[in-house]
Amino acid sequence: MKYHAQVEISLKKGMLNPEASTIQRALALLDYQVEDTATIEIVKFTLEAENPDVAREEVVQMCERLLCNPVIHDYQIQIEAAGD
Amino acid sequence: MKYHAQVEISLKKGMLNPEASTIQRALALLDYQVEDTATIEIVKFTLEAENPDVAREEVVQMCERLLCNPVIHDYQIQIEAAGD
Repeated sequence: MKYHAQVEISLKKGMLNPEASTIQRALALLDYQVEDTATIEIVKFTLEAENPDVAREEVVQMCERLLCNPVIHDYQIQIEAAGD
Repeated sequence: MKYHAQVEISLKKGMLNPEASTIQRALALLDYQVEDTATIEIVKFTLEAENPDVAREEVVQMCERLLCNPVIHDYQIQIEAAGD
């Protein structure tokens, strides 16, 4: 069966986020004062699996091996049956 | 008053997404077959504004001037009162 997976990848609390600080500084140069800027990346894809648990387990492996760096990233996984 | 803003930035339909195709190919090298890979970036920050409409209008300007490229990106904005 096909499943849609969504992985939300964010930096762990306390980690420096150069992309976010660059965005905040650039916005300030354009006279927009913002604070607490953070960035999150979402990766979405479709995969074949027997059931949602098998799909989730496979996506956890993908996160640990490729999509995230467990030392600096937190990740959240959402799995949904693909409505064929 | 303070507002939390969340901007969800994705490529328009039909646009090539090199990051997503690289992720899909890398996953295949690790024997994970996935399809329809897509990436979305979320930028979150806090800003001061008189009311939600003014906050939204300011964030739209930030998107048009800095955060997004209107030619290739779609963006969605969520505004929430910051619970001080």
